[in-house]
Amino acid sequence: MTIFTALDILGTIAFAISGALSAINRKLDPFGIFIIAFVTAIGGGTVRDILIGNTPVSWMQNTLNIYLIGIAATLAIIFRNKLGYLKRSLFLFDTIGLGIFTIIGVETGINAGLEPIISVALGAMTGCFGGVIRDILCNEIPVIFRKEIYATASIAGGICFMVLYVFAIDQNIIYIATTLLIITIRLVVVKYKISLPTFFIKS
Amino acid sequence: MTIFTALDILGTIAFAISGALSAINRKLDPFGIFIIAFVTAIGGGTVRDILIGNTPVSWMQNTLNIYLIGIAATLAIIFRNKLGYLKRSLFLFDTIGLGIFTIIGVETGINAGLEPIISVALGAMTGCFGGVIRDILCNEIPVIFRKEIYATASIAGGICFMVLYVFAIDQNIIYIATTLLIITIRLVVVKYKISLPTFFIKS
Amino acid sequence: MTIFTALDILGTIAFAISGALSAINRKLDPFGIFIIAFVTAIGGGTVRDILIGNTPVSWMQNTLNIYLIGIAATLAIIFRNKLGYLKRSLFLFDTIGLGIFTIIGVETGINAGLEPIISVALGAMTGCFGGVIRDILCNEIPVIFRKEIYATASIAGGICFMVLYVFAIDQNIIYIATTLLIITIRLVVVKYKISLPTFFIKS
Repeated sequence: MTIFTALDILGTIAFAISGALSAINRKLDPFGIFIIAFVTAIGGGTVRDILIGNTPVSWMQNTLNIYLIGIAATLAIIFRNKLGYLKRSLFLFDTIGLGIFTIIGVETGINAGLEPIISVALGAMTGCFGGVIRDILCNEIPVIFRKEIYATASIAGGICFMVLYVFAIDQNIIYIATTLLIITIRLVVVKYKISLPTFFIKS
Repeated sequence: MTIFTALDILGTIAFAISGALSAINRKLDPFGIFIIAFVTAIGGGTVRDILIGNTPVSWMQNTLNIYLIGIAATLAIIFRNKLGYLKRSLFLFDTIGLGIFTIIGVETGINAGLEPIISVALGAMTGCFGGVIRDILCNEIPVIFRKEIYATASIAGGICFMVLYVFAIDQNIIYIATTLLIITIRLVVVKYKISLPTFFIKS
Repeated sequence: MTIFTALDILGTIAFAISGALSAINRKLDPFGIFIIAFVTAIGGGTVRDILIGNTPVSWMQNTLNIYLIGIAATLAIIFRNKLGYLKRSLFLFDTIGLGIFTIIGVETGINAGLEPIISVALGAMTGCFGGVIRDILCNEIPVIFRKEIYATASIAGGICFMVLYVFAIDQNIIYIATTLLIITIRLVVVKYKISLPTFFIKS
């Protein structure tokens, strides 16, 4: 198993748990919980595969992910009261998923021979889409439109990845540095309630 | 014409009528009604084709479906007052569409050489997506998140299909048994207001 | 540079500005504004490419569009107070984008060897999807479901394109005639508050 596969598994589990917690919070039934966990976990990768034309999409070629999502959702249901403050757990797993899936998206873009800026965009879509679709389905304001820096963290991570990649840094270091950067940005931003300024219109 | 083509036509008509009735209920204009009928009827199949990479997607390769949807939407408009209690008609056509499109999705997965569990998931997506997109566009709570068993019926039907398929039962019998199972589950569930339990969080 | 490329650039800029204005109106932060501008500008073309299987989708093969969208969004932010009455500017750019992207969609369908009615449908999807996704993300009622003729204008333009095409009229004349027709329909419809009738249900 390569580090790439290991990352994919970790990201899938993290997003599946975040989806399950969100669905439990919305009092959905077990099937609803599994569906939201599934869509959150595979959403980003599916959009990535469809955009670059990698079909049948990844989760169809590999049953492992479906079983992992099922197990993660079941564990989230069983330990829902032990996951501590629900919103904090949700934030944690969502952020891990964002970091990992951003990396996978950027790397996929590079491997497909896309330009750096396009690879960063693909990374941001792969990272953000699962959380966006989860929030839309659970009737929350999509995470990228809340007054927190979310897509921006993913894009910053993607740019960090590209810069280190150009300097031919060791792949494992790139992975760790990028994930840590994204997670750190998210933590700092939410802890200190940092948000980007908005523009007003005179009318 | 094979039984497969006949099923596809029946499912398309059923979902087109369900979409048109939903749009009429929302007082959309004729073009809005046609668009909702169209999207409901082709939504599931389009998602299925995109996921497995069967492009241009089916409805682009066959104008018959577009004409059928147009006729079905027109008939739904003309006979809107004779379709009896609107919600009951909507439920009926939606359930027929769900049963048929689940079968088509599972069979497509098997033909594409996908694993059984993936084929069942593809069947559920093909079956459920049309209704979900119809409800989102008409601003209803998506049918799979209402307190009725919907995706579960589709998944149960898909599993039934796979089991009978493994035992090499005659194809026509598989089609009929699966559709009847899905329709029966939906009818029983809605009649007796059965729903799956939900989980509460101590906090 | 062909007239086709020029049209694509114009449509991209028009939709990017309409997306940015809509996001500014919703008081999103700069990244939110750029994301909405991006999704509005590439949404229609991405759906078109995915449906016909043209992957990696167009905006991945050409970085020019990303830079143009960035510049258009920046200009919209800078000149937001000089764009006059915001709703009027939004309407103008949205309508130009609708006209141009409808043409590109119809032409793509013809070049892919699709039937005339399918090409018109593809044109309507390419034209309408950007605006629909912009409105969903900005939490507005999607433009095709407001009591204005929108998809209908796109479809009328598509039919006009096909008819002129069958008579082998000069391509440039087809482009101009179709765009003008769509823009005129939209202007007349909104100015005189024309809407299609709706159907009522006796119950």
